[in-house]
Amino acid sequence: MALKTLGPKAAAALDQELMSTCAFSIDQLMELAGLSVSQAVYRVQPLEKGRRILVACGPGNNGGDGLVAARHLFFYGYQPSIFYPKRSKNELYQRLVKQLNDLDVPFVDDFPSALAAADHVVDAIFGFSFSGEVREPFPAVIRALEETKVPVTSVDAPSSWNIEEGPPKSGLGSSFMPATLVSLTAPKPLVNHFTGRHFVGGRFVPPSIARKYDFEVPKYEGIDQIVEISPVDQKL
Amino acid sequence: MALKTLGPKAAAALDQELMSTCAFSIDQLMELAGLSVSQAVYRVQPLEKGRRILVACGPGNNGGDGLVAARHLFFYGYQPSIFYPKRSKNELYQRLVKQLNDLDVPFVDDFPSALAAADHVVDAIFGFSFSGEVREPFPAVIRALEETKVPVTSVDAPSSWNIEEGPPKSGLGSSFMPATLVSLTAPKPLVNHFTGRHFVGGRFVPPSIARKYDFEVPKYEGIDQIVEISPVDQKL
Repeated sequence: MALKTLGPKAAAALDQELMSTCAFSIDQLMELAGLSVSQAVYRVQPLEKGRRILVACGPGNNGGDGLVAARHLFFYGYQPSIFYPKRSKNELYQRLVKQLNDLDVPFVDDFPSALAAADHVVDAIFGFSFSGEVREPFPAVIRALEETKVPVTSVDAPSSWNIEEGPPKSGLGSSFMPATLVSLTAPKPLVNHFTGRHFVGGRFVPPSIARKYDFEVPKYEGIDQIVEISPVDQKL
Repeated sequence: MALKTLGPKAAAALDQELMSTCAFSIDQLMELAGLSVSQAVYRVQPLEKGRRILVACGPGNNGGDGLVAARHLFFYGYQPSIFYPKRSKNELYQRLVKQLNDLDVPFVDDFPSALAAADHVVDAIFGFSFSGEVREPFPAVIRALEETKVPVTSVDAPSSWNIEEGPPKSGLGSSFMPATLVSLTAPKPLVNHFTGRHFVGGRFVPPSIARKYDFEVPKYEGIDQIVEISPVDQKL
């Protein structure tokens, strides 16, 4: 069975439905999404492999998921640091930043230096609503992520990839292949171009909603908030 | 070292501080508290011991934690049902109920029948702000919890117990001893009268806040949102 995916319009509609008809608040969903991301990082980058996690956050919801993940990573015993150059003025994001400030999690300005000092990077720059051009100051960040040997975990989409078509054919992002991808709620079509370890997270989608949007909720184990998708399930 | 506890006034002040200075929303905190409770239930009542979990919810925040826990239990593969006779009109609680309705989790009216059909009960009736008398319709529920052989997990406090002094000296609740207690953020003084399995949950308290309120955050393992406190740590 092919892995069913959700295109950007369907993913946006699903998000809207979760927050309207399904009565979830964005605080709740972002908390659970960020928790999923933190569990995937714990799986691929156990503490003994190095604790310094650089979390690169974009201006929107993907960045918010990164901020939440960073907080959970702190509590697991990691040393997160945050690159968050375009801060949202939205009150929720300001609160997520304050929660990190209270843990003395550093916010860094110089991405290349921070990357050089990191054991792992979380790419929470752009999510399923990304399209078009990578805007400043992110081109240099994408380039650094393309070139680095530090393993990268991308949240919902490798940033700069087209949600339907995957990596750009040429130029910025065309050779960006993160080690890990965490698809939130459902994989996006770009996963068909992804060759790393793939997790699905966001264990909160009602079965009725999965049926309506025609995707499969994978079989989570125990109390896990993520499930790894084997390449066989993904590609057949 | 004796286990440090937080009395009802300090616990209320801590909650207020988390939601003001610390910038957490109640949605976030309740989500993480309920998640902790669900993980404790998973630990003491693994799926193979029986999946039918009756969650008894009171009118306040303790009941809200129960509603969140029930949702997570559903996703783990349990069959939760909810007894929630005094529903809050607060929008957050209405949303938590809707999230359960969308999963077809049943709300039940007849507590004794529901209890007879349950493998495990979550007591999310009263939390650390409880004092005084048990009001209708809860006296019969407490009595049933006192008498049942079905194991009970209490959230933050065995309902009807005095937060400082433990079980009532006589009458209703005086012989209520749940099998399991999940203390949220910090144990309350009543734990000194508790003889079952004791967990602490709520892995979100900044170390600076724990210092300010003078309690110890126990050592959580891995990505766990709960930690079991051994009787030795608890009683010495």
